[in-house]
Amino acid sequence: MYEGPVQDLIDELGKLPGVGPKSAQRIAFHLLGVEPPELDRLQAVLQKIREGVRFCAQCGTVADGDLCRICADPRRDRSMICVVEEPKDVPAIERTREFRGRYHVLGGALDPLSGVGPEQLRIRELLTRIGSQDDGVDVTEVIIATDPNTEGEATATYLVRMLRDFPGLTVTRLASGLPMGGDLEFADELTLGRAFSGRRTL
Amino acid sequence: MYEGPVQDLIDELGKLPGVGPKSAQRIAFHLLGVEPPELDRLQAVLQKIREGVRFCAQCGTVADGDLCRICADPRRDRSMICVVEEPKDVPAIERTREFRGRYHVLGGALDPLSGVGPEQLRIRELLTRIGSQDDGVDVTEVIIATDPNTEGEATATYLVRMLRDFPGLTVTRLASGLPMGGDLEFADELTLGRAFSGRRTL
Repeated sequence: MYEGPVQDLIDELGKLPGVGPKSAQRIAFHLLGVEPPELDRLQAVLQKIREGVRFCAQCGTVADGDLCRICADPRRDRSMICVVEEPKDVPAIERTREFRGRYHVLGGALDPLSGVGPEQLRIRELLTRIGSQDDGVDVTEVIIATDPNTEGEATATYLVRMLRDFPGLTVTRLASGLPMGGDLEFADELTLGRAFSGRRTL
Repeated sequence: MYEGPVQDLIDELGKLPGVGPKSAQRIAFHLLGVEPPELDRLQAVLQKIREGVRFCAQCGTVADGDLCRICADPRRDRSMICVVEEPKDVPAIERTREFRGRYHVLGGALDPLSGVGPEQLRIRELLTRIGSQDDGVDVTEVIIATDPNTEGEATATYLVRMLRDFPGLTVTRLASGLPMGGDLEFADELTLGRAFSGRRTL
């Protein structure tokens, strides 16, 4: 619809997730109007991403140095490892302030149809980490926090099998049930079923 | 929440219109995972935008050369000019296939509180264009297609005043009324009022 670089920009923006044609156009015209320093900053961060992002050598999340801030923090509990699928799951759990241990990012979930098997995930690294102690402290609990969907559940099942032979290790899974603030009548039957089977004594 | 360039990227993306913190994170992790050529393309179009976008010397919309495709097209009716606020209004009207004349982009609407007066808009260029004929053809109709909001209506009123002394020139305004496919009961009272005052004999 537009001529020259404006349409090219709209086309490129439209390839981003969650950006439809209307949003792409809106963002493009916004960028046409911004001051050069703002465009420079956007270009500079893209260049840094282009040059490569570092990942924590221990847990596999996004890091600025060799280790991420959480793995480098001596105050974090070394005896607990929370296993997540993606780096973006880490800040989600951090925001709850419920967990003071460390993380392990798998880099996805088992999905054989898409060619993701155990070898494509950082499972070997997890086993090595548990087997060789975490900074000299025995790991006593692994919390499996993969997504509550088919792939995440399959990954959790696989991990439980791999981890059950470690002596003194408890393997737990995040609870499934009704989301807080939600309405029981709007819950899907799978969630409601999980809420029933996981009911607690008060 | 994240370390290094990833957080910088999320911050920059979050400044774009319509991109909230969650979308910014989603786009950032998408960009982390794309192939280098895709990032290169995004960087290249941003660089082109950074170097400056050209605008049509006649109508003021985004152009690849001196004139935009519409102004350069000899088949377009030179006797009609449709006045719009922004370049993005042009493809919106083009999609209707109702208009075969040319456009004039004002570059905004009158908004004295934000410091936008007639001098900040391309009104002088419009008057020159009408006064000196459009490529040797007299302009006989100016369709004012500014937005149907306070600023757009004020701009339309101002333009009508400026244009009424041109001999043989008809000045029209896009109709306001109920949007097609809408539901009468959900229309706001201003729109419904306009639909009443603009009712037509069948």
